[in-house]
Amino acid sequence: MEKIFVTGAAGFIGSNLVDRLLADGKSVVGWDNFVTGQKKFLAGALKNENFRLSEGDNLDLPALTKAMAGCDTVFHLAANADVRFGLNHTGKDLQQNTIATFHVLEAMRANGIKRIAFSSTGSVYGEAEKIPTPEDAPFPVQTSLYAASKLAGEGMIAAYCEGYQFEGYIFRFVSILGERYTHGHVFDFYQQLLEHPDRLKVLGDGTQRKSYLYVQDCVSAMLHVINLSTATKAKHGVEIYNLGCDEYVQVNNSIGYLCGALSLKPKLEYTGGARGWVGDNPFIFLDTKKIRATGWKPALTIEQGIHRTLQWLQQNQWVYETRK
Amino acid sequence: MEKIFVTGAAGFIGSNLVDRLLADGKSVVGWDNFVTGQKKFLAGALKNENFRLSEGDNLDLPALTKAMAGCDTVFHLAANADVRFGLNHTGKDLQQNTIATFHVLEAMRANGIKRIAFSSTGSVYGEAEKIPTPEDAPFPVQTSLYAASKLAGEGMIAAYCEGYQFEGYIFRFVSILGERYTHGHVFDFYQQLLEHPDRLKVLGDGTQRKSYLYVQDCVSAMLHVINLSTATKAKHGVEIYNLGCDEYVQVNNSIGYLCGALSLKPKLEYTGGARGWVGDNPFIFLDTKKIRATGWKPALTIEQGIHRTLQWLQQNQWVYETRK
Repeated sequence: MEKIFVTGAAGFIGSNLVDRLLADGKSVVGWDNFVTGQKKFLAGALKNENFRLSEGDNLDLPALTKAMAGCDTVFHLAANADVRFGLNHTGKDLQQNTIATFHVLEAMRANGIKRIAFSSTGSVYGEAEKIPTPEDAPFPVQTSLYAASKLAGEGMIAAYCEGYQFEGYIFRFVSILGERYTHGHVFDFYQQLLEHPDRLKVLGDGTQRKSYLYVQDCVSAMLHVINLSTATKAKHGVEIYNLGCDEYVQVNNSIGYLCGALSLKPKLEYTGGARGWVGDNPFIFLDTKKIRATGWKPALTIEQGIHRTLQWLQQNQWVYETRK
Repeated sequence: MEKIFVTGAAGFIGSNLVDRLLADGKSVVGWDNFVTGQKKFLAGALKNENFRLSEGDNLDLPALTKAMAGCDTVFHLAANADVRFGLNHTGKDLQQNTIATFHVLEAMRANGIKRIAFSSTGSVYGEAEKIPTPEDAPFPVQTSLYAASKLAGEGMIAAYCEGYQFEGYIFRFVSILGERYTHGHVFDFYQQLLEHPDRLKVLGDGTQRKSYLYVQDCVSAMLHVINLSTATKAKHGVEIYNLGCDEYVQVNNSIGYLCGALSLKPKLEYTGGARGWVGDNPFIFLDTKKIRATGWKPALTIEQGIHRTLQWLQQNQWVYETRK
């Protein structure tokens, strides 16, 4: 049976991936340091005999190498996914994204594992001039330490594909939404509305245009592409795919969907400016023709994804407690 | 007086830059760990009262921070510049290029220094489809750990420009030639011909097309651009320039220039294949319109650069001893 190693297995996207892989009859080793991951997210998986949880940190290369033994494919999803606060702790993205990815590659090499899928980000395009932004957009200028660290990870993966005949799948995500979502716009807005339903503080002027994808669509896209084994046919052994919907919404639209569903009319307090924070990108919209051409398409619209996310947050308010 | 910090000050390009800065009347702090740097290269500088040598390693952040105090501009040239052997020591590029660059940025931030010039590489374009390759070429796929680590450095510098209002100059070099040249094709070929003038082993089939720039032209270009302060006007505070000639030569041409100058006719032994090694790029030729538009142009052709290099190697055969 195919055995799959998932880093960040207890995270938002990781735990959804684990559940899907198990449902598909795969054997899965989940790896997480439980800094942001939640054991509750693995409650179902832990009941499955094809699942093994291995607790550890990507910065501990010997432990990572040991845990990975016997696996065929690695989904490297563990990351510091906190784009906004990169400037508050400049070493964090380097450690948890760049160096961690190097360790994953080295652990794979030590174990003779050659297939890797990596969660990169549409933020690597910086403030793209070409929108929707395709995978071969003009060489971008980085605007956040988070994206710079993901770009560094992409580069190393590609070099391992060239140098060691790895098979690499790099997925540049838009923001992902859905069950087990634990950070981002919708998370923050709902938290505020729980605390004070009459007002909502909005970073920036609310006109930032953002693209989102529902987590189950994200998982489907990754598995669809890997099953096609496109990277084995690619020139340098690596395939890069944008993952997103073919639509975007303004932050103000997201607020409208949320408040509509909650029947609230809070006073909106904008901090102002085109960007919510330094490094925020006022317009993210990825060209997804490449992944669409493989036959995949998302099941949910952004609005539907936001509604699902809200429903889950309403039923799982404990996630706010774990962040305090 | 403007005070400039140069990492890799005892290296090939660094020491040439130091000499030029001192000749221009600047105050210079040279930083080097002397792993590949040569004290002999600083013999002139060490006699100049405006030069101070500080011996240390970029991986030692506290020492680096201390050494940098009081400087206005940093030229970050220190690097593992060994493209070819990246696969033999996978952590070296990450340590000496990516993490080292992070430390340089952190030391600058601690000292309130905001202006940085960085020696990146044309290798970040991977095997570019667009040749000559412009700075905004399609988003490339990395083919070596060396280039991946330089790309990681570029990304962090850009993020510091955005996040901390740094002023960044990223120079993507072709291969640099000239006085104090201590590694690369011409270095290796001459070494072989010293040992056995009757035969020459050539990696690949000799048709690889490479671009070179004379070191004094390289130094002139960097200083020319920085004096124009173009980055202060750039959208994200960072300017990226390709540095090269508007010509390229085949490896076989380089061999011809060398053997002509030495009056040798060695038997050529090709290892074969389009690439000299895994990750070798069979065709590097950068579009240099952007730097040309600033008014800079190289003084020497590639052939002239190779002749100067050979002359210097003939007069400084001790550099081969230091590599053994």
